[in-house]
Amino acid sequence: MITASICTIGDEILIGQVVDTNSSMISRTLGREGIRVTDMISIGDDRDVILGSLRKQLGSHDIVITTGGLGPTKDDITKEALATLSGSRSNIMHEGQLEVIHRILHARGLDVLDVNRAQALVPDTCEVIVNQRGTAPIMVFRLPEAVFPHKPVLYAMPGVPFETEAALEDVAADIRNHFETGKITHRTIMTYGLAESALAKRIASWEDSLPESMHLAYLPDPLKGVRLRLSMYGDYAPDQMQFQIDKLCEIIGDYIYSFEDESLEQAVGKALLSRGMTLSAAESCTGGEIAHLITSVPGSSAYFLGSVTSYAISVKERVLGVPAETIERFGVVSSEVAIAMAEGVKKLTGSDFAVATTGWAGPGGGDSVNPEGTVWVAVAGPDGTESIKFRYTNDRLRNIQRFAASALNYLLGKISERI
Amino acid sequence: MITASICTIGDEILIGQVVDTNSSMISRTLGREGIRVTDMISIGDDRDVILGSLRKQLGSHDIVITTGGLGPTKDDITKEALATLSGSRSNIMHEGQLEVIHRILHARGLDVLDVNRAQALVPDTCEVIVNQRGTAPIMVFRLPEAVFPHKPVLYAMPGVPFETEAALEDVAADIRNHFETGKITHRTIMTYGLAESALAKRIASWEDSLPESMHLAYLPDPLKGVRLRLSMYGDYAPDQMQFQIDKLCEIIGDYIYSFEDESLEQAVGKALLSRGMTLSAAESCTGGEIAHLITSVPGSSAYFLGSVTSYAISVKERVLGVPAETIERFGVVSSEVAIAMAEGVKKLTGSDFAVATTGWAGPGGGDSVNPEGTVWVAVAGPDGTESIKFRYTNDRLRNIQRFAASALNYLLGKISERI
Repeated sequence: MITASICTIGDEILIGQVVDTNSSMISRTLGREGIRVTDMISIGDDRDVILGSLRKQLGSHDIVITTGGLGPTKDDITKEALATLSGSRSNIMHEGQLEVIHRILHARGLDVLDVNRAQALVPDTCEVIVNQRGTAPIMVFRLPEAVFPHKPVLYAMPGVPFETEAALEDVAADIRNHFETGKITHRTIMTYGLAESALAKRIASWEDSLPESMHLAYLPDPLKGVRLRLSMYGDYAPDQMQFQIDKLCEIIGDYIYSFEDESLEQAVGKALLSRGMTLSAAESCTGGEIAHLITSVPGSSAYFLGSVTSYAISVKERVLGVPAETIERFGVVSSEVAIAMAEGVKKLTGSDFAVATTGWAGPGGGDSVNPEGTVWVAVAGPDGTESIKFRYTNDRLRNIQRFAASALNYLLGKISERI
Repeated sequence: MITASICTIGDEILIGQVVDTNSSMISRTLGREGIRVTDMISIGDDRDVILGSLRKQLGSHDIVITTGGLGPTKDDITKEALATLSGSRSNIMHEGQLEVIHRILHARGLDVLDVNRAQALVPDTCEVIVNQRGTAPIMVFRLPEAVFPHKPVLYAMPGVPFETEAALEDVAADIRNHFETGKITHRTIMTYGLAESALAKRIASWEDSLPESMHLAYLPDPLKGVRLRLSMYGDYAPDQMQFQIDKLCEIIGDYIYSFEDESLEQAVGKALLSRGMTLSAAESCTGGEIAHLITSVPGSSAYFLGSVTSYAISVKERVLGVPAETIERFGVVSSEVAIAMAEGVKKLTGSDFAVATTGWAGPGGGDSVNPEGTVWVAVAGPDGTESIKFRYTNDRLRNIQRFAASALNYLLGKISERI
């Protein structure tokens, strides 16, 4: 299997000022091409450190991709290190990149200075992929057999994610042209409602029975539940993978909400759209998080009418029409109040479905029946209203997230019941 | 200077399915303690690779911090590698962590399985910092002089960012106790409304004039604006730092909203509490994000009454009482509609202040006057209602965050005007 290593260059990453999102993006693209990234390294703008790291990475990988360290300011010394590494004696001006530099700076009304022009100067040992979105070219070094017997290739890319993203497809094309890439296929299975450990226990024997060429990864996320990724190395036989997924469904089908890499709020949106139905929400303890999640999906205005965050009891009564005696009799955190909230906001907005939450996110609050970490969720729909209780921990922010995710999952189930 | 290296363990990072945010968070914390991170490495769940990488990192650093690879499922083999590395012959059950495991699982109504219990089993060569937010303990290995003459320390932390974040302060305290980190004092200055580059340009000569012993760090966050951290190395002279901060205030005072490390929503909460006043919100394009931010602060029920997310025009009219002719005449994204929304929700909830947003988060929408990326914010208060317009880019999620932050910053200014 062809392996790759990623090297991120820049002090801003090392001191934690910027989160490196390039490595993740590069790795996803390489994985799609059947290339396995075995490590990612972040180092600072130091010539000797760069040289040392790249020599080591090139020594043990077929492909090395660097990002960053190519800007016009003096702390960027990557290019010099690459010239040394590849045995370059002189630089060449790349006319294609120089044109882009002129175009970009002119568009911003800036003069082309010597420091800008210098960005198009590249070591004579490299090929250039023109960076259409930025001033620093992508440099491709095919390293000589004399130094690295396995003839690795180094791609030096810019550090700005917007530029890396655009250039990555050109790099992938170059890799396809120069390497015999193997095949990896991934399938994603989204689950909600089982903790990672409980899930692992349930599917342990299924996992053990997977063929050698398949590998399962657990990717837990407090918001999205546990994402399972089944990878198959080698020749792609769709049937083989589907066969395993069908077996998995027999075991944990109730907890699977999607076979695409999508969030609960995306799945809810799809379910509503395909039925031509609308949604509203009434939130107490989740404080707007459900509405925020739903509306974070582009196009959500097609099915989401709105919501009421009823933090104060007076808002529950006056805006949502929850009867004071219901609150008095059952308590503000109760099935009855959740149901009244859901029905209230459904009536107020005229939506087909409504979801409501009332609970104790903490810190403090609650009683022995409904302690801190308890949430009541109600869903009102065309066929009536139902409610369910969930219980989590004593961490406010995490409770809010889990309450919202549990409510969305419950809602998704109710929507899916309607064909 | 004491140096550190970070090692992120997990196939999910390598394959690019998850972006590593832990390394950045750890590096910022270590930087605050005067420790320099010289490299960050991501590797997969492979015993030999883990061992090889950690041996190398320990050989050239005082501190190595690992995150990830400690979950209950079988693809996590970090603990075994650490046992080998530290020469452990047996595992010990850590009762403190076991208690947390029981507490967390019971609170969620789950049984404690053997795989869960096994998480509290640690090599006899380590000390434990109890992970209060998760099931995997933080393991501290003080490595023997015989193997590593400079006696480095390895901290093995969980990979879930929420857990890493909480445990990091305990790790920092341990580092302070065991290393001569030197004296550093930090002051935080929270700014909002200037991009990092514009801010840097305005305060460039102030920054250049800082004494040798002081250092300024920029910590930009799309939600919180740019956080400035002024650090002073060596003996602490409070006057010296205050003198510099006073000078800074003369230059960018209008953009400073706090001298504590707090978010806009926390500052809004404090400002309301100290005045004994209440708040409500009416959100269109921010879709619940403002309510979510406000209610993410513990104790917010003391001042936040509730909100209406009026995604559909019918909800703006029926629930908030925005006149149909106002929408017709000025358009749904307009100062007039924002003002009507703020006044509507203020009346509906009976709050002292109300904040409202209406805008185009994208993708698409808008016209030449109010294009995609435009938001109108209105604040209704005891002295009347005012509005302001902001314009951002064409990225939906980023727009929602910036709209909400800009609204909170504008609201904070209006609340602060009342003594």
